[in-house]
Amino acid sequence: MIKTKKKKIDKIGNIRHSLSHLMATVVQEFFPGVKLGMGPAIENGFYYDFDLVPKGTSFTPQDLSKIEKRMRELIKQNIPFNKRIITRTEAKELFKNQPYKLDLIKELRDNKINLYQHGNFVDLCLGPHVKKTEEIPQDAFKLTKIAGAYWKGDEKNPMLSRIYGLAFETKKELEDYLKIQEEAEKRDHRKLGKDLDLFYFSELVGPGLPLFTPKGTFIKEELQKNVEAICREYGFEKVSTPHLTKIDLYEISGHAKKFSDELFRVTSPRGHEFVLRPVQCPHQTQIYASKIRSYKELPIRYMESSNQYRAEKTGEVGGLNRVYAITVEDGHTFCTPEQVKSEIKAMVNIIKKFYTSFDLWGKHKVFLSVRDYKHHEKYIGEKKDWDLCEKILQEVSDEMKLNAEKKEGEAALYGPKLDFMFKDALGREIQIPTVQIDFATPKRFNLTYINKEGKEQNPVMVHRAILGSYERFLALIIEYFAGALPLWLSPVQVQVIPIGERHKKYAQSMVKELEAENIRASARIDNETVGKKIREGEMQKIPYLLIVGDREMKNETIGIRERGKGDLGAIGLSDFIEQIKIEIKDKKIKK
Amino acid sequence: MIKTKKKKIDKIGNIRHSLSHLMATVVQEFFPGVKLGMGPAIENGFYYDFDLVPKGTSFTPQDLSKIEKRMRELIKQNIPFNKRIITRTEAKELFKNQPYKLDLIKELRDNKINLYQHGNFVDLCLGPHVKKTEEIPQDAFKLTKIAGAYWKGDEKNPMLSRIYGLAFETKKELEDYLKIQEEAEKRDHRKLGKDLDLFYFSELVGPGLPLFTPKGTFIKEELQKNVEAICREYGFEKVSTPHLTKIDLYEISGHAKKFSDELFRVTSPRGHEFVLRPVQCPHQTQIYASKIRSYKELPIRYMESSNQYRAEKTGEVGGLNRVYAITVEDGHTFCTPEQVKSEIKAMVNIIKKFYTSFDLWGKHKVFLSVRDYKHHEKYIGEKKDWDLCEKILQEVSDEMKLNAEKKEGEAALYGPKLDFMFKDALGREIQIPTVQIDFATPKRFNLTYINKEGKEQNPVMVHRAILGSYERFLALIIEYFAGALPLWLSPVQVQVIPIGERHKKYAQSMVKELEAENIRASARIDNETVGKKIREGEMQKIPYLLIVGDREMKNETIGIRERGKGDLGAIGLSDFIEQIKIEIKDKKIKK
Repeated sequence: MIKTKKKKIDKIGNIRHSLSHLMATVVQEFFPGVKLGMGPAIENGFYYDFDLVPKGTSFTPQDLSKIEKRMRELIKQNIPFNKRIITRTEAKELFKNQPYKLDLIKELRDNKINLYQHGNFVDLCLGPHVKKTEEIPQDAFKLTKIAGAYWKGDEKNPMLSRIYGLAFETKKELEDYLKIQEEAEKRDHRKLGKDLDLFYFSELVGPGLPLFTPKGTFIKEELQKNVEAICREYGFEKVSTPHLTKIDLYEISGHAKKFSDELFRVTSPRGHEFVLRPVQCPHQTQIYASKIRSYKELPIRYMESSNQYRAEKTGEVGGLNRVYAITVEDGHTFCTPEQVKSEIKAMVNIIKKFYTSFDLWGKHKVFLSVRDYKHHEKYIGEKKDWDLCEKILQEVSDEMKLNAEKKEGEAALYGPKLDFMFKDALGREIQIPTVQIDFATPKRFNLTYINKEGKEQNPVMVHRAILGSYERFLALIIEYFAGALPLWLSPVQVQVIPIGERHKKYAQSMVKELEAENIRASARIDNETVGKKIREGEMQKIPYLLIVGDREMKNETIGIRERGKGDLGAIGLSDFIEQIKIEIKDKKIKK
Repeated sequence: MIKTKKKKIDKIGNIRHSLSHLMATVVQEFFPGVKLGMGPAIENGFYYDFDLVPKGTSFTPQDLSKIEKRMRELIKQNIPFNKRIITRTEAKELFKNQPYKLDLIKELRDNKINLYQHGNFVDLCLGPHVKKTEEIPQDAFKLTKIAGAYWKGDEKNPMLSRIYGLAFETKKELEDYLKIQEEAEKRDHRKLGKDLDLFYFSELVGPGLPLFTPKGTFIKEELQKNVEAICREYGFEKVSTPHLTKIDLYEISGHAKKFSDELFRVTSPRGHEFVLRPVQCPHQTQIYASKIRSYKELPIRYMESSNQYRAEKTGEVGGLNRVYAITVEDGHTFCTPEQVKSEIKAMVNIIKKFYTSFDLWGKHKVFLSVRDYKHHEKYIGEKKDWDLCEKILQEVSDEMKLNAEKKEGEAALYGPKLDFMFKDALGREIQIPTVQIDFATPKRFNLTYINKEGKEQNPVMVHRAILGSYERFLALIIEYFAGALPLWLSPVQVQVIPIGERHKKYAQSMVKELEAENIRASARIDNETVGKKIREGEMQKIPYLLIVGDREMKNETIGIRERGKGDLGAIGLSDFIEQIKIEIKDKKIKK
């Protein structure tokens, strides 16, 4: 979505709205008897809904270019748009053959009915519009899509045919937008997920419930290994907790109320009553609570990659970005107040290290999300705790040079946080990692430790997300790398393609050599042509294709094709292995 | 549970039943006014339920030994047991002060009421009993437990006090049973799970939903890594599928009907309707079904360690053996009919390799579970498929020398299977691994592949379980090893204990050296005494404790205490490392 500046909204809005009316004029001209629905300006363009005769007919792509052409002719005629006001009775007479317009008139309370007219075309409309069609740039609009749409969005009403158009102030803006759209389509993780054989949806299982293939599972697990290895360096230990719970747990934590709409209820014919967890924090508190703790044991750091469930709105579920079951890498530190700052620094270092392996660190912003100072009552916890937390986060930002931007009113319910914003493939800002201080939850669950003075004290809980949900993170990186995942993360790193039948054994022996060096390799020993194997290898975004034939066998070399770079010539296998082992170890990104 | 031979049931049954009556006599003697409930013979012994006066009082352990002593005195008197039959009216009169007996009389339809009498004690009873108390061995019974029990097991009825007794025909049988019980208690995974800090249950989360600590999670993951590494050698690839599904999936697979009582239903305030999966097979079929498959791709082998959910009866949930959410390592091969045999052999090899690493292979039996030949209609699928499958399994058994014992009527709904039976710590037979041939499911889901002739054909599905559910397997091995897990599976393999303050640094440097060799080590640098640290290390069943003091620092050695063996004397660290690296690599079991 391109951001339009506030000042321009009216001008471009008028253009878009007027283009919608012009389109309706042309449709009336080409499709006599058409009934008109509504035609507003929308973000990036406009649409108009039509009911064609005979019933059930719709537009063809060819129609769109004809309509577009005729619209340009009309624009050239510099037709003026005029506002008129008539009475309800006059309006009913005027639109007597337009049932949808009559339906709209019925809803209007005023006796004065607004119209806009250009040429012979009159529409029920509040405006505003351009004064004359010369204000509309000829080369900055385009009709793009035909879609079905229920009248007033209600599926009990008739289905109309909608034509969408894009419109901007300049040709360049339109072109830029189209380019981004094209890029977005190419990078769409739903399309690439299928092309690269990573995940599927099954009608029998249902939408919002992705099934990961061996390759998709491999990537998820590799991400997990990577994030866990980094967290382990900072003392995090894995725990594993169930996805079900009695709702009692969330009545104490506050999530029962917070997630009431999104909470899946679990029942059985035997009378069981549970809920599926929407978050992992409360479960992790229960492991902390399983023993008496001493200050000597703190910090205790738990992490867990596991499922959380949210009853998302059916209409909002799609691809991997919004699913019912998300696999979340969630972690919490329980520590003394004195340890909070160094724990947060450790978490920032984890985030830095992890995002560096995707070449994303440095392309980010940090927000320090603090409370709404005017409305402390919206939050849980005492003022002095909040002041302390915000101070700690500011110090971390200063000392680690994060340049965190303060965002008032963006804190979590239980405490302030550091949010890390990254840019996706299309430049949109996405928040994934977060570090949050929480004095409230340990108090709610009555978590304690015996302090140095031998007294019971509540620990502080620090929440942290590194990659967030695997599903969303996977969608992000698939789109960011347009499917060409970094070598270290590629399910197949090297594919060996023998030129002829007599090179197959050699190809297979190479795979063995590569595998012995922990390089994920496969050989294409089926009977397709070399050309097709190369094309398919490239489609699959395999980082390296090794071509072996007579010459390579004789010289004990391989012909390398690198992803995105094509043929790199011949090289000895052991040199190649050394080279890519470094590339893997250093998690290098080649783009 | 000790197996009693059929022939003996009557004799020991009579003894147990008569002991129950004798116990009631004594209780009446010691607790005047007591109301009697029921007193049957049960497996391994007997019980009797009593309602003591005043309300709410119960027995003390001291009472039990007094009652037991008095029972022995009565036995010596060689009292005869006699049967009598009286009318309903006489019975009501006889038991007028015994409300529970009156309650039982009400339920009897016959006018003839059976009684058994010995001495002055008369009970409503069908018998049979011993003829005289001399038949009861004096030294082969014992009162063991006091428990609360609702009258007729209904919680709406009053709570009575139950005394349990054990009784056998010989003193040795009693002693053996007690010894096994004692051993079982020591090995009980619920107790050891807590002692070793492996898992907990939280009241807020609920029973049947274990929370695994870092150590417990480590063991689960190590088991997973181990089983997956073996399966990967045989071509299995990991997939990951959601725990939820529309019920449509199970309507096709047949599980909706089969698991109707145990199926958890998932709903939301937004109108969603799902079920939690009771098995993984149908989800895995949907990944197979996501693409057109060719015979060239087969066998396709999927594996997944993930959750399954069963709404177990509330009363049956306990420890890790019966939980609501089980983590199951489940796998399936989709192959051509010609590939079935070699796939099954591969699976048997996987089972063999896995169970060898626990020293359990060789201590097992194999069952070839075939259909009930007289009732083929109970099964899904065609006769000729069944004949072929059973033939294949018999051949596998012969060729691999499994000596499978044929079990008629024990097949799965969809095909015959090989079941592997292992013995647990107490010698009980437990079935975990299984290999099952399934022609039916691929047909139900219309799974196909293009065969060599270019035609669509259904693949065969082979189900296999290796370790089954992690929860149950963990319970099994905790009890089998009495908590002293094999070195390769121990969360902490080595703990270094410095003798004094000045040895702490040396201890820590040793941990670093051990960790550099991928040995899981920790140092006890807190200020407890060496003796206490050693005791705690032994309690924690840590395989090796290394004691370091002045002498060890000077000689660059360590003092080793091996689990179960005590002090082994001093040895150089590098020698020790070499030694245990072999022990870990070979997955040696020291018992």
